[in-house]
Amino acid sequence: MDERAALGLLGERLPAAGDDCAVVDGQVLTTDMLHETTDFPDGTTRYTAGWRAVGASLSDVAAMGADATAAVAVYGAPAFEESALLAFVDGASDVCDAVGAEYVGGDLDGHAEFTTATTALGRTDDPVRRSGASPGEAVCVTGTLGRSGAALELFEAGETERANELFRFEPRVRAGTALAPYATAMMDSSDGLARSLHQLCEASGCGVTVESPLPIDGAVDSVAADDQERLELGVFFGEDFELVCTVPEAKLSAAREAVPCPLARIGTTTAGGVTLDGESLPDRGYSH
Amino acid sequence: MDERAALGLLGERLPAAGDDCAVVDGQVLTTDMLHETTDFPDGTTRYTAGWRAVGASLSDVAAMGADATAAVAVYGAPAFEESALLAFVDGASDVCDAVGAEYVGGDLDGHAEFTTATTALGRTDDPVRRSGASPGEAVCVTGTLGRSGAALELFEAGETERANELFRFEPRVRAGTALAPYATAMMDSSDGLARSLHQLCEASGCGVTVESPLPIDGAVDSVAADDQERLELGVFFGEDFELVCTVPEAKLSAAREAVPCPLARIGTTTAGGVTLDGESLPDRGYSH
Repeated sequence: MDERAALGLLGERLPAAGDDCAVVDGQVLTTDMLHETTDFPDGTTRYTAGWRAVGASLSDVAAMGADATAAVAVYGAPAFEESALLAFVDGASDVCDAVGAEYVGGDLDGHAEFTTATTALGRTDDPVRRSGASPGEAVCVTGTLGRSGAALELFEAGETERANELFRFEPRVRAGTALAPYATAMMDSSDGLARSLHQLCEASGCGVTVESPLPIDGAVDSVAADDQERLELGVFFGEDFELVCTVPEAKLSAAREAVPCPLARIGTTTAGGVTLDGESLPDRGYSH
Repeated sequence: MDERAALGLLGERLPAAGDDCAVVDGQVLTTDMLHETTDFPDGTTRYTAGWRAVGASLSDVAAMGADATAAVAVYGAPAFEESALLAFVDGASDVCDAVGAEYVGGDLDGHAEFTTATTALGRTDDPVRRSGASPGEAVCVTGTLGRSGAALELFEAGETERANELFRFEPRVRAGTALAPYATAMMDSSDGLARSLHQLCEASGCGVTVESPLPIDGAVDSVAADDQERLELGVFFGEDFELVCTVPEAKLSAAREAVPCPLARIGTTTAGGVTLDGESLPDRGYSH
């Protein structure tokens, strides 16, 4: 069973799960595990790792339109080197500070591979789910796409400082709470724009037509060899932690005014199918 | 830096951490990582692993005197086999049911070694910390000690059914909330009674004299070759998830009546030092 099938199975078994966060009692709760082999390329600093790992969980809180309250992390490593551990904690604390949440610690685990498990907690009386979109609404995305894909190329090229910068994203908690009164459906783009759109459409029982230009990050332009790679990094690679949401046409300008970051309208919801510039957009992306 | 030193360092850096749970905004939050090599001996079923891993986090909630609200877990494994995954989820769900909490899912991670990271959330307006004990109070422990140590011996002897049973403990959430109005300090015995007493005394700035007999589980008697091994499994091995607490003498009988499980008085707090039957009790135990 691949991870996607396994997640589907879990969703059936656990009705509170299946969205970016579980919702329980006016609160949202989410947890993620990241590890060196698959998530932290050579050159990723422990500060960036702490920021990014905790940020990924905060992004899930943002995707529910919830306010982030607190986060914890487990730091698993073969050895506990003081400077590395403190750098991780600083990164985790700083990303929490950036969104007004509190980093309240966690646990240590002696582990063969550097592995971190992060959990974030948020609060909302009215969570925005993936399932509320209907045909004829605007499809929007915050910020820019492809930062992480570009970062990976830069890590490989040895440009680690710039790559680390791109790897540290600000979780869209403020944008999420600002969008919550307007958005009918929302999720984060951690699996890539393409997969995220498919997931949102599947949950909502609708489709979406997307039109270029997409808000692809300038960093992608600086590393992509051609348009194909630009699309690959910006649309399929994922791990970007922007918010993808649907907003009724009549509320779009109010939503845009409320959101403290760029909000690009990239398309419109339809009765079915996911297309980009009239062509079918494949349901593929980053598998965690 | 060993794990203990590293935890000390984290405690200095993160004031909200350092107890069994972090306390934030009327809530308690705790996270743990367990993995195959160190935490799940050969013969541990995935049902037991799910129960035990989530139970360990619920035990931390109990140790704060908080009511358990919800738990999540990441299931990291080299492959996602349906029966194993569902058994894990069933174990996680059942241990939550046992204490009135909700298991709300989590995440999957492709991981070389079977690894799980669990997080539990609880609620209390008045958390019981490790630091509130003062000399002249009764030192108590819930249930019996040494179940996990005995289980390990049984796993080694191939008696896996009985070992799995012992490995599945009921987190002391009801006992914890019942003790909360009476206890001046509380923690769980996951590092073993000896280390737990040292930690509680260090946090409270006091000592403790403990007198035999201790409430050592009958399973320990059935596997221990002699008194020395009985003491090793019951007092030092740990991973037992009972509550260790201090209660003022005048409140002891009321506390005992309130608690829905056995509560053994094992000693008295003093000005300093940790002794068992008049001998110094070493500060050693299970290191996670």
